[in-house]
Amino acid sequence: MSFAVESTPLAQALIQLALLEDAPGGDLTSNLTIPPDAQALGIARAKEPGVLAGVGMMRAVFHAVDPAAVFSAQTQDGETFSPGAEIARVQGDARAILAAERTALNFVQLMSGIATATARYVDAVKPLPARVVDSRKTIPGWRILSKYAVRMGGGQNHRFNLSDGVLIKDNHIAVAGGVAKAVNAARKHAPHTTRIEVEVETLEQLREALDAKADIVLLDNMDAETLKRAVQTADGRALLEASGGVRLDNIRQIAETGVDIVSTSGMTAGAGAIDIHLKMEMI
Amino acid sequence: MSFAVESTPLAQALIQLALLEDAPGGDLTSNLTIPPDAQALGIARAKEPGVLAGVGMMRAVFHAVDPAAVFSAQTQDGETFSPGAEIARVQGDARAILAAERTALNFVQLMSGIATATARYVDAVKPLPARVVDSRKTIPGWRILSKYAVRMGGGQNHRFNLSDGVLIKDNHIAVAGGVAKAVNAARKHAPHTTRIEVEVETLEQLREALDAKADIVLLDNMDAETLKRAVQTADGRALLEASGGVRLDNIRQIAETGVDIVSTSGMTAGAGAIDIHLKMEMI
Amino acid sequence: MSFAVESTPLAQALIQLALLEDAPGGDLTSNLTIPPDAQALGIARAKEPGVLAGVGMMRAVFHAVDPAAVFSAQTQDGETFSPGAEIARVQGDARAILAAERTALNFVQLMSGIATATARYVDAVKPLPARVVDSRKTIPGWRILSKYAVRMGGGQNHRFNLSDGVLIKDNHIAVAGGVAKAVNAARKHAPHTTRIEVEVETLEQLREALDAKADIVLLDNMDAETLKRAVQTADGRALLEASGGVRLDNIRQIAETGVDIVSTSGMTAGAGAIDIHLKMEMI
Amino acid sequence: MSFAVESTPLAQALIQLALLEDAPGGDLTSNLTIPPDAQALGIARAKEPGVLAGVGMMRAVFHAVDPAAVFSAQTQDGETFSPGAEIARVQGDARAILAAERTALNFVQLMSGIATATARYVDAVKPLPARVVDSRKTIPGWRILSKYAVRMGGGQNHRFNLSDGVLIKDNHIAVAGGVAKAVNAARKHAPHTTRIEVEVETLEQLREALDAKADIVLLDNMDAETLKRAVQTADGRALLEASGGVRLDNIRQIAETGVDIVSTSGMTAGAGAIDIHLKMEMI
Amino acid sequence: MSFAVESTPLAQALIQLALLEDAPGGDLTSNLTIPPDAQALGIARAKEPGVLAGVGMMRAVFHAVDPAAVFSAQTQDGETFSPGAEIARVQGDARAILAAERTALNFVQLMSGIATATARYVDAVKPLPARVVDSRKTIPGWRILSKYAVRMGGGQNHRFNLSDGVLIKDNHIAVAGGVAKAVNAARKHAPHTTRIEVEVETLEQLREALDAKADIVLLDNMDAETLKRAVQTADGRALLEASGGVRLDNIRQIAETGVDIVSTSGMTAGAGAIDIHLKMEMI
Amino acid sequence: MSFAVESTPLAQALIQLALLEDAPGGDLTSNLTIPPDAQALGIARAKEPGVLAGVGMMRAVFHAVDPAAVFSAQTQDGETFSPGAEIARVQGDARAILAAERTALNFVQLMSGIATATARYVDAVKPLPARVVDSRKTIPGWRILSKYAVRMGGGQNHRFNLSDGVLIKDNHIAVAGGVAKAVNAARKHAPHTTRIEVEVETLEQLREALDAKADIVLLDNMDAETLKRAVQTADGRALLEASGGVRLDNIRQIAETGVDIVSTSGMTAGAGAIDIHLKMEMI
Repeated sequence: MSFAVESTPLAQALIQLALLEDAPGGDLTSNLTIPPDAQALGIARAKEPGVLAGVGMMRAVFHAVDPAAVFSAQTQDGETFSPGAEIARVQGDARAILAAERTALNFVQLMSGIATATARYVDAVKPLPARVVDSRKTIPGWRILSKYAVRMGGGQNHRFNLSDGVLIKDNHIAVAGGVAKAVNAARKHAPHTTRIEVEVETLEQLREALDAKADIVLLDNMDAETLKRAVQTADGRALLEASGGVRLDNIRQIAETGVDIVSTSGMTAGAGAIDIHLKMEMI
Repeated sequence: MSFAVESTPLAQALIQLALLEDAPGGDLTSNLTIPPDAQALGIARAKEPGVLAGVGMMRAVFHAVDPAAVFSAQTQDGETFSPGAEIARVQGDARAILAAERTALNFVQLMSGIATATARYVDAVKPLPARVVDSRKTIPGWRILSKYAVRMGGGQNHRFNLSDGVLIKDNHIAVAGGVAKAVNAARKHAPHTTRIEVEVETLEQLREALDAKADIVLLDNMDAETLKRAVQTADGRALLEASGGVRLDNIRQIAETGVDIVSTSGMTAGAGAIDIHLKMEMI
Repeated sequence: MSFAVESTPLAQALIQLALLEDAPGGDLTSNLTIPPDAQALGIARAKEPGVLAGVGMMRAVFHAVDPAAVFSAQTQDGETFSPGAEIARVQGDARAILAAERTALNFVQLMSGIATATARYVDAVKPLPARVVDSRKTIPGWRILSKYAVRMGGGQNHRFNLSDGVLIKDNHIAVAGGVAKAVNAARKHAPHTTRIEVEVETLEQLREALDAKADIVLLDNMDAETLKRAVQTADGRALLEASGGVRLDNIRQIAETGVDIVSTSGMTAGAGAIDIHLKMEMI
Repeated sequence: MSFAVESTPLAQALIQLALLEDAPGGDLTSNLTIPPDAQALGIARAKEPGVLAGVGMMRAVFHAVDPAAVFSAQTQDGETFSPGAEIARVQGDARAILAAERTALNFVQLMSGIATATARYVDAVKPLPARVVDSRKTIPGWRILSKYAVRMGGGQNHRFNLSDGVLIKDNHIAVAGGVAKAVNAARKHAPHTTRIEVEVETLEQLREALDAKADIVLLDNMDAETLKRAVQTADGRALLEASGGVRLDNIRQIAETGVDIVSTSGMTAGAGAIDIHLKMEMI
Repeated sequence: MSFAVESTPLAQALIQLALLEDAPGGDLTSNLTIPPDAQALGIARAKEPGVLAGVGMMRAVFHAVDPAAVFSAQTQDGETFSPGAEIARVQGDARAILAAERTALNFVQLMSGIATATARYVDAVKPLPARVVDSRKTIPGWRILSKYAVRMGGGQNHRFNLSDGVLIKDNHIAVAGGVAKAVNAARKHAPHTTRIEVEVETLEQLREALDAKADIVLLDNMDAETLKRAVQTADGRALLEASGGVRLDNIRQIAETGVDIVSTSGMTAGAGAIDIHLKMEMI
Repeated sequence: MSFAVESTPLAQALIQLALLEDAPGGDLTSNLTIPPDAQALGIARAKEPGVLAGVGMMRAVFHAVDPAAVFSAQTQDGETFSPGAEIARVQGDARAILAAERTALNFVQLMSGIATATARYVDAVKPLPARVVDSRKTIPGWRILSKYAVRMGGGQNHRFNLSDGVLIKDNHIAVAGGVAKAVNAARKHAPHTTRIEVEVETLEQLREALDAKADIVLLDNMDAETLKRAVQTADGRALLEASGGVRLDNIRQIAETGVDIVSTSGMTAGAGAIDIHLKMEMI
């Protein structure tokens, strides 16, 4: 087992929290009806098509409850699956598998929901060169899983959090005294490994940002026509990111304006769960 | 401050995890562009209609980052709001408010999404007597917030987790050797404060469950016609819960069959975020 | 290993706390006197008769300190044992076993104390049908272990905690404006999986509770005579739970009144430790 | 508020665990029956005589649930109280006080049980000079509270844990190759701030220990006659601690032998709870 | 109080760990010798010159132990101080202040040691344009404090951790099949907010990296002459970072080669503590 | 694996914090450039001479990231090594080893730095009988690792923390009303396993301490001449500890005065890292 997403400190903490909320005192029903030595085999299958993310989280949840459970992924994260496809198998202590079932499924269903939604956004843009990226509008506690699922769906990540990227917004600009001053202040002390991004609402602000040599300019809520003019204005001097109001039905039009990046919270905040269920049999 | 949802151990743990994932090392951009003594006023407003849930979580997030911030809820959890409605105000250290903004919004947006979705399900059933209840299909880490938001939307809760309710499913029945045996085993040792619920797939199993004096019978994936016959069969001897495939477009039809409870994961697993944003000004 | 009590999140947290308090910096004496490669065999034996609970906690403590230790339970939880009976064997790194010894024994001794006390209460009531159940008056941090040990001793559990059962007491009644109003308020919004229990101090309040269709009525501190009249009054319309002042010397008399349930904190709050010790030899 | 026992890291961790186990999702009953703005006054009174320990833990529990609650101790830790004596008052949010009540009482009842038991042991020895001290046989998770309660009852503490004292037992002696070798090995590397204690079972071993210049010798399970001879043998060359089989009914006889210290787990492992209850009224 | 370094999740966790290791069971000596109601005033003064970092950590430690303590910083982080300069004052419960003293000082002494060391490196380079930056060679658990102290000393930060920057080293290059392939793979999927840095050991590798359009090239362990040729070779096409073997006595020579950045672990891994002590008086 | 330093609760907590700060979201670079199934062999070698401490921490860090990694220590803690010596080998998942490398090295480098510095102090005193001991001036979070590394370097430990030793300083004396009163107060209630140490600044105070029968007297900042007179004054009635201003260049002179113990923070607070690096190859 490598340093996979499920082994990261943030994912481990979330798994512990999930087991705590769902089974602080164990599984009442199984303890009452299943003998302690019963063994079970569970087979997870998809009931609808999608892109998989989270099979490793399933494994980690089952192993947290029963370290001796034998788990095998039949589909890998990032692969597409059809209805009926086998996702994974788990075999072991029946009480343990029943106790972990719902939590394991809740993880893989929602992560696959994000991956599948992402794939739709990415497909809508193909074969245009624009990157489809996520945002910080993720479910609290789920940042690392959300970002990972976006990648599994073929999308790409924006900065991970407030500590590892610079994105100067209207409030920062207002306090700093203008786009140029804010960009310069940021560049002066930000780690040299970080690009400086600034959010603008007008083409005039874009010009200011370009003059200040911002590395990336986020074009906030501009219509397609304005985006095209922004691309002409920038003329390659900075990466351009279109953001705000991006939906599956308009992302292609936005990508066609020539911007380098289209960011949307639609892949992470609006995704539903993909139906994956676990069929159990006692063995 | 009372023992509100945001004060519960599970919610506190999630807030800590959310701040850890979004700002392990603080807010790089604000540290670079905002003076340490700047003060700000933020006003949260809805951009679309909905039912509020999570204003206390907003307060808790802001106070986790700046204990001295002054926060006032302008709308209360459980209230409906229109686009443009003021949700809350927060005033305090500018860097702190900017650092907490996204996390606070992520909580209230998704919780309000659940409350708003719930209200739609509940409205669809009115004025029929059937209860609309949730399930354990919630976002891992979000159990308590999901259950709370369902109540704020007018819905009601199923059992909170595996440790506090008895729900006998097909696997338990198979191992126990039949519905009656499983129900009896459960009743014998379950806390007397807990009702015994058993899931059935056929009317014959329903009769078995009734004979075993199950308190609640979950009717799994039955069509409306079968549900009606189940209601006649039970004739008040047990609470009947319809579950499986419940959607906003068929919940009324299901409720009209006379079942006591309709349970659905649609309120918690499929809810999107309600758009609430924070307008900041430096003061 | 299955989802046993020692694998639950609450038990795991307590094990970590117990090791932290007893060996934050390791075992000074063993580090000074035992070579790092010494191996030891420990045999746990009872020095007095009792009912076992906690052999899995022993295993978990030894494995927390030395994952490679070989542990075998010779007596199972729930079994009675005589003085001299072998409870368990552990073999492995000598320093590790010595470091874990006291903590492992502290768990199994007190848990077996609870199980043994419970067995006495349960025996005192046999063969009357009344259930002997515990309360929330448990050692802080020990809720799950206490409830488990009660079951191992043949007793049954009341609600696990404040979040998973409804027990309306005098203060709730006073604020709600009477028994009926409190019961109705609770029933309206409590999960349908939960029975509604209300505490009463007089037969008049009992009648109110019955009229309000409470599922369970807790008869607080009533003498045997009054309990009998309560049983007649209820006439099967609700489960009756006698509580308050229940001791080993009066529980039978109380059970004979015909109440369905007798609850007492005597099994968990007053239990002493059963003497179990570990005989070590170097190998 | 100072660095009192309730502020120590170990006590804080236990408080969090206690609230987590008793109210992971809040207090269902109070949420259903008490209005969110209700205020309450609770008065804790003793129902039996005892020695108080844990009033600061009560304060900490109430403040953990409602930081704005007003709490005042009417009796101080270490003071004796009579039945009916007022222990403390707490005023604040009614839901919060009801949610914290049981946990707060569980702490103070058991801690006072330990303090009261300790006072009995200490009184039994008065006015003899022997110290009455505790052991490591404490409830897992309760080490610091147990040790503190012993002090409040007038007793004194043995080493806190494995990391901060040297107590050489039979296994250490066996591996080290004899009492002298074990004592010398320990002295050579133990912190100079720590005395070296060695456990012996015979007078011959005692002589070995004295020759090895052990600072303290634990006389394990010796009868009174042998203890007297041990005192003569030692003649002040080491502190002598009698241990094993010490009960309230024989501790005086043991202390009369002239040993310096009598250690017993009877104060911490066998203590019951002192009945202290909280009378609430809505205000 | 704002979102200062001491309020970040990582710093909070370290403070808790530090108090746990130093006072798991409180402060034995103060409990034995200081009355519980004693008040004290402590004045922290420098005993040698330096640059301050960590005065907020001092505040946080004192407040963790006594929330009511009154603390005032007399010198601010980032300011230089002379021997005898007053750093801070704290007034409150005497036991609490004594308990927190050593931990508070351990933080500010070492953090100021890092800041002071940094200032020496930065001064050595002035007024050359090269940035002086740190590395990931920090004390485990101290990453955020180390990075912060470097900034207070006038230095700048490299990437914070493995998750927020791309630095391709020899092993990555070997597996990826060459510099160009590694850079391309990284650019394709790395967040667009992150620059791509690649480590090279020869000028030939530098050319490869420049051709692959790496944003930053780390020149590993090159001598001054080679660094100069690297600067000529790059000719502004990438940021150049000199690393490896950088010491206070050669950093100027390295900076004079024209590289953009000089990185060194000398500021964080080799820094000693600055002597700051706390003079207490009882009041 | 035994109850080694890396298995203690404090070390485990620090490892988790270290991985959290360095890889909250995994290793971006390796994820982008190394295939998930790549295997690697890493060989750790010293680049300068020293005394090893922390090879078990290396093992624990690698196993935290990849439980299946095969790790073997080639040098043991406490052994001296020469430049080029092989310290350890680790083989396993390439991404995992790369992710853990820096953290593992940061531990062993700094711990070996402390052990090596300690060895220099110890050597400087040889063959004089004085003990060389550490202090509580350790890196916050690193107490247990620092104390362990001191032992590995041949030094000895002072008390571990505030909870397990009594050291009466000037403030305690002032409040208690003199040396004798403070010593008596401490002796009366301190665990009998703990020696009483008191800090004095003058020979007159030393006499007071001796008269009060302090077990250990800390002679604070006395010159060699005064220390000699202190030794004559004490004449074996108490252990004498010289402290304050102890450096490598004066420790022998201090030890020659005849004091029993010389304590210094120089081994833990001023130690630099020993250069140990990991050479990786893909296999």
